[in-house]
Amino acid sequence: MARKIRMGMVGGGRGAFIGGVHRIAAAMDGEIELVCGAFSSSPEKSIASGQDLMLDPDRCYADFKEMIKKEKKRKDRMDVVSIVTPNHMHFEPAKLALENGYHVICDKPVTFTLQEAKKLKDIIQKTGLTFALTHNYTGYPMVKEARQLIRNGALGKIRKVVVEYPQGWLSFPIEKQGSKQAEWRVDPSKSGVAGAVGDLGTHAENLAEFVTGLRITELCADLSSVVEGRVLDDDANILLHFDNGAKGILHCSQICNGDLNGLNIRVYGELGSLHWRQETPQYLHHKSIDGHKIYQPNVGKLSDEANANTRIPFGHPEGYLEAFANIYRNFARTVRKRMNGEEPTALDLDFPTIDDGIRGMQFIETVIASGKQCKWTKFKS
Amino acid sequence: MARKIRMGMVGGGRGAFIGGVHRIAAAMDGEIELVCGAFSSSPEKSIASGQDLMLDPDRCYADFKEMIKKEKKRKDRMDVVSIVTPNHMHFEPAKLALENGYHVICDKPVTFTLQEAKKLKDIIQKTGLTFALTHNYTGYPMVKEARQLIRNGALGKIRKVVVEYPQGWLSFPIEKQGSKQAEWRVDPSKSGVAGAVGDLGTHAENLAEFVTGLRITELCADLSSVVEGRVLDDDANILLHFDNGAKGILHCSQICNGDLNGLNIRVYGELGSLHWRQETPQYLHHKSIDGHKIYQPNVGKLSDEANANTRIPFGHPEGYLEAFANIYRNFARTVRKRMNGEEPTALDLDFPTIDDGIRGMQFIETVIASGKQCKWTKFKS
Amino acid sequence: MARKIRMGMVGGGRGAFIGGVHRIAAAMDGEIELVCGAFSSSPEKSIASGQDLMLDPDRCYADFKEMIKKEKKRKDRMDVVSIVTPNHMHFEPAKLALENGYHVICDKPVTFTLQEAKKLKDIIQKTGLTFALTHNYTGYPMVKEARQLIRNGALGKIRKVVVEYPQGWLSFPIEKQGSKQAEWRVDPSKSGVAGAVGDLGTHAENLAEFVTGLRITELCADLSSVVEGRVLDDDANILLHFDNGAKGILHCSQICNGDLNGLNIRVYGELGSLHWRQETPQYLHHKSIDGHKIYQPNVGKLSDEANANTRIPFGHPEGYLEAFANIYRNFARTVRKRMNGEEPTALDLDFPTIDDGIRGMQFIETVIASGKQCKWTKFKS
Amino acid sequence: MARKIRMGMVGGGRGAFIGGVHRIAAAMDGEIELVCGAFSSSPEKSIASGQDLMLDPDRCYADFKEMIKKEKKRKDRMDVVSIVTPNHMHFEPAKLALENGYHVICDKPVTFTLQEAKKLKDIIQKTGLTFALTHNYTGYPMVKEARQLIRNGALGKIRKVVVEYPQGWLSFPIEKQGSKQAEWRVDPSKSGVAGAVGDLGTHAENLAEFVTGLRITELCADLSSVVEGRVLDDDANILLHFDNGAKGILHCSQICNGDLNGLNIRVYGELGSLHWRQETPQYLHHKSIDGHKIYQPNVGKLSDEANANTRIPFGHPEGYLEAFANIYRNFARTVRKRMNGEEPTALDLDFPTIDDGIRGMQFIETVIASGKQCKWTKFKS
Repeated sequence: MARKIRMGMVGGGRGAFIGGVHRIAAAMDGEIELVCGAFSSSPEKSIASGQDLMLDPDRCYADFKEMIKKEKKRKDRMDVVSIVTPNHMHFEPAKLALENGYHVICDKPVTFTLQEAKKLKDIIQKTGLTFALTHNYTGYPMVKEARQLIRNGALGKIRKVVVEYPQGWLSFPIEKQGSKQAEWRVDPSKSGVAGAVGDLGTHAENLAEFVTGLRITELCADLSSVVEGRVLDDDANILLHFDNGAKGILHCSQICNGDLNGLNIRVYGELGSLHWRQETPQYLHHKSIDGHKIYQPNVGKLSDEANANTRIPFGHPEGYLEAFANIYRNFARTVRKRMNGEEPTALDLDFPTIDDGIRGMQFIETVIASGKQCKWTKFKS
Repeated sequence: MARKIRMGMVGGGRGAFIGGVHRIAAAMDGEIELVCGAFSSSPEKSIASGQDLMLDPDRCYADFKEMIKKEKKRKDRMDVVSIVTPNHMHFEPAKLALENGYHVICDKPVTFTLQEAKKLKDIIQKTGLTFALTHNYTGYPMVKEARQLIRNGALGKIRKVVVEYPQGWLSFPIEKQGSKQAEWRVDPSKSGVAGAVGDLGTHAENLAEFVTGLRITELCADLSSVVEGRVLDDDANILLHFDNGAKGILHCSQICNGDLNGLNIRVYGELGSLHWRQETPQYLHHKSIDGHKIYQPNVGKLSDEANANTRIPFGHPEGYLEAFANIYRNFARTVRKRMNGEEPTALDLDFPTIDDGIRGMQFIETVIASGKQCKWTKFKS
Repeated sequence: MARKIRMGMVGGGRGAFIGGVHRIAAAMDGEIELVCGAFSSSPEKSIASGQDLMLDPDRCYADFKEMIKKEKKRKDRMDVVSIVTPNHMHFEPAKLALENGYHVICDKPVTFTLQEAKKLKDIIQKTGLTFALTHNYTGYPMVKEARQLIRNGALGKIRKVVVEYPQGWLSFPIEKQGSKQAEWRVDPSKSGVAGAVGDLGTHAENLAEFVTGLRITELCADLSSVVEGRVLDDDANILLHFDNGAKGILHCSQICNGDLNGLNIRVYGELGSLHWRQETPQYLHHKSIDGHKIYQPNVGKLSDEANANTRIPFGHPEGYLEAFANIYRNFARTVRKRMNGEEPTALDLDFPTIDDGIRGMQFIETVIASGKQCKWTKFKS
Repeated sequence: MARKIRMGMVGGGRGAFIGGVHRIAAAMDGEIELVCGAFSSSPEKSIASGQDLMLDPDRCYADFKEMIKKEKKRKDRMDVVSIVTPNHMHFEPAKLALENGYHVICDKPVTFTLQEAKKLKDIIQKTGLTFALTHNYTGYPMVKEARQLIRNGALGKIRKVVVEYPQGWLSFPIEKQGSKQAEWRVDPSKSGVAGAVGDLGTHAENLAEFVTGLRITELCADLSSVVEGRVLDDDANILLHFDNGAKGILHCSQICNGDLNGLNIRVYGELGSLHWRQETPQYLHHKSIDGHKIYQPNVGKLSDEANANTRIPFGHPEGYLEAFANIYRNFARTVRKRMNGEEPTALDLDFPTIDDGIRGMQFIETVIASGKQCKWTKFKS
């Protein structure tokens, strides 16, 4: 008899934001069960958080090391570990989990440094376990449709890509006013060398490469720390060159006051263009000199990739949490099949991996290198 | 130690649509656990459906009577029953569940006839149990915000209400082409006396009364069965009078080819108007002669009612499933508190009840009475 | 050598609104020259208004009778008369102008009563002169495209029409606060038997019949005078039946606070639907179960009728004044050809005529008859 | 007695695009009369074009020199010269017109080189005549409102500006397929050193500086000639630095297939942001962490500058031609007052001047200098 995939969580205690998102995403489709967690670096808080979640107190651990160790002894032990801590605390739990036989799903950016990301890839390859990275915006069905349209040549040769990720919630120094979410994001010891570029720019880079299938080869960045007192960038304007000769622009910001979560992309090819905005993710615009069409989930004939990541009939909007859940569900199906000795399908495997994570870390380090000198810089390898 | 609310489901087997929605809505927030079900009138299909859901085979029942009877003997028995069958099969399981001590959450329209709905209210009152009706569109945070704005006088006296629910998926006779979803909806033995009016019109009526706080007192309906061979209405145009003297229009349709799930409402008061569309539910427009504002979840200061039904920060779209889940979550919190002898708060109790169900059945019967004679007809009581 | 068509104007003096619109519409394309006018019932104001317009003082007349009489004696006399007075002062100047050999272009509704409209038709037919009615909203290129798409069968059989014209500028009794525009519109001695229905409903009716090619056969109206002290309707909700069996809804209002000039139409046919909104007139949405396309002027292949009424390349928005000017330009071209003994083309003749005016007056009188008794009423003939 | 301003035109013969736009813009408000022209470098075509326009054949001149010379002898001679030729033919007619006492209104970019633009400024100053540049996009009322809001501190300190001007009509080499509009734009002997940057980038630069009141101090450009065979840029991505420390992005393109005339701007300040798109110019979005408002012409309280450039009530869309006409009308009022020895008001003088033209030429030359070497380059002076 089939059972749900059992998940333990690292991070995501009381007051955290992204942990709750991961839990909803994992729970939604009924294929994963949260069974344990090390929710906080404070043991008391970890246990209290687990109680909020109605977990068995025995399985609310003081830290991830304890969780990994003790779960191994249980018959009903967890199958996968979900890592939702700030950037600087991704590598260690991921490594330990993999080395102890657990599949891992991890928030982005994948690690604190590019070097860590590469090490992690080695470990994944060595263990043969499944690793998913929650670059959640590629989980939207219309993003998958865009990728398929481009794969199928609907735009011809890609010429220009404009990808933007403006947010405005850090327009004021709220990190000094008690915002826990703001605090770690502007702190180099937790976020790494980049601020907006790490938090938002990596999503934009990932989206652009995912949708177009192209790779950025070099870039020229203009970074700013707009709000007084910040050491990391909170705004970045970046020119891009792609491996097929296409040009592009990527900008991301935490100080675009009035913008909410404005990730969007426009891809221009010889034959037409695609336009998508995260805040109304159900619409994919396909425009050309000859006309303007809007694609929506379940309307007309769409790709298998879009259909597989849509739950409900047309006109019933699915949103951010469903896109996030698509990654969890595909990850869970892959894990289940591998646990059963079956081969996952291409649709099962449709989630971001360590390679996306490495690209993201390369992007961060290349931007920082360019931004210091304001010059064209080759993509790090 | 707290535990999840345990839920059994009636209906929602393989091939059903709304059952899966209910399951996602129940699972999302981690407060409810699906433990058993009578998923189909065919015992084999019920069991197969339960296996798909990774349930204990012992708790996949042949019919709702068996489920109610056998669960009572279990120590870990279900707490609540979710009813997701077509309209004609709501009353019997609801009645039996309540009479056996289970709280009930039920799809709409609440029953097959107004008379049944009134009987059900008696039973609910007698048992003192909790009954929720999944008029899911009132679960959206911006719908709650609209209600609060009107309660607080933002529009002054309401003068006109336009509420629309156009769909187009039944533009062709797909009930003859194997669509299970279409079949029961056009079949009077399963849907009752109304087609589009029951399926969609009741949502529109509920939304209008929910948002405005007004009650429809009389109406004048023009019903059509547009697609050849249909006996129930698939299109309805209805003039409304409200109890404060306001006028209105309600129209709903299954043959508006090109419209998806186009529920929307506009409420015009002396001082301004509110405009909301289900397909982009994150936007609530507040317009007046002096200006146009757009409200969105978590942007600026909103009502407690809106905030309590929002999960994630601004710009991260929540959709249909989250609105649906709000009903389940509020229902679960109410049930939990009542099971613990605590008093639910107003925010816990913010879900539709049997009274909404009775209004819906009155609406259906009034429309049908008017539509036969095309004349102003007082709202049934 | 060709010369511009010479125009005289009746009404449109200082403080008027629609007169200025007519002048811009007439001037824009350089085919018509305003040469004289009787701009006000006050001779002094008429002359002052003419001076504002830099007209020859000799041709600023005290009233339309004087204008018609004196212009006849001039060698460079006007060719056409433009009538922009309130409704009750359309018939007399139109009659006199036609009887003295001038072509006429007139604001809507065409006359004060249906009887006058029919008389006017007789005079037009007898004189053989050209008469245009400025139902300006059918001058938009995307409205013409909609008509052509339907003519060409893009929607199949029409099943439902929803046409709306909400305005909000009369939400308060501004007619008592010095608004000249409001004063005459709520005054039965100037507007006739209808308020919103005459001012706005006729546009909606005209748009629906223009776009669909159908004719309303009966209707059921619910009229209101919402703002205290008004005797004419300022809000109307109307159910429609069309000659092919289609159903419809028309509502118009002057008290929809927050709506600006919200004329819009949706036409649903067997195969799909068309959606158009006056406030963003460059977009025509064509939707069906299979997809959603947006048509815009000069994008892709459009009808000759749309192209002939577009001046500038795609993406350069044309608006209300250009749509209005299309009527003037087509009227001017028709007049010029007829003056030269040539046959106007179908594109020249693409402007509303006395027949549209008669339909409008029939509509008004039918609505008033129905609204008094709230019952289905056959369209007046 | 007042009379219309008399205008002669240079360029704009049969087959031209922008000449017709200028004529409509000049005619619309009834303050300017086109009396003569040198419409083409071919005398026959010039006369034929004048006949199309119903001008006196005596005033259809073989070239601008003849026009300027012969008009001087007429009592009813023209007052102003409108120059609508390609870029390389702006300077000579402007110079000659000014030196012969005519006011000038000229299409943009103002000249072929920066040096010419500076010379022209000297001539204007020496003659004391009025010179207007048709940077038409700043003629929109909501653009003026944006400028006033920023002047009044609504956004606080400006931090970031994103201005875009994507077009797609040159996605294919239509200059080789007979498109006259395309031919001169891609020809360095007619357009100058820049392609998209001159045609579109200057509008974007002008809009950004107009709205913000800031000045670009340096930029870093990435230019491309995407379509094979082109020598001028048809796509440009540019990073900007402003004189107050703000950063920005400007990109413009002729190969964004599917975009029409997509000029748009977003200005982010400490306190909020403004968002405007040319294709729906009636909407100005004002967003901040606290809310989202939409401003529209004549809705609520707007600046005098916005109101003075709006003709009709709210909800009646004005478009590209009206914005263009605002420049002509303000220019005409300024000229009239100066001809009458009166002082023009600030509202009369609200049109672009030679200084805008010089900024545009500086922008072009700076971009080209940067683009060759892909490096930060100070704004030319």
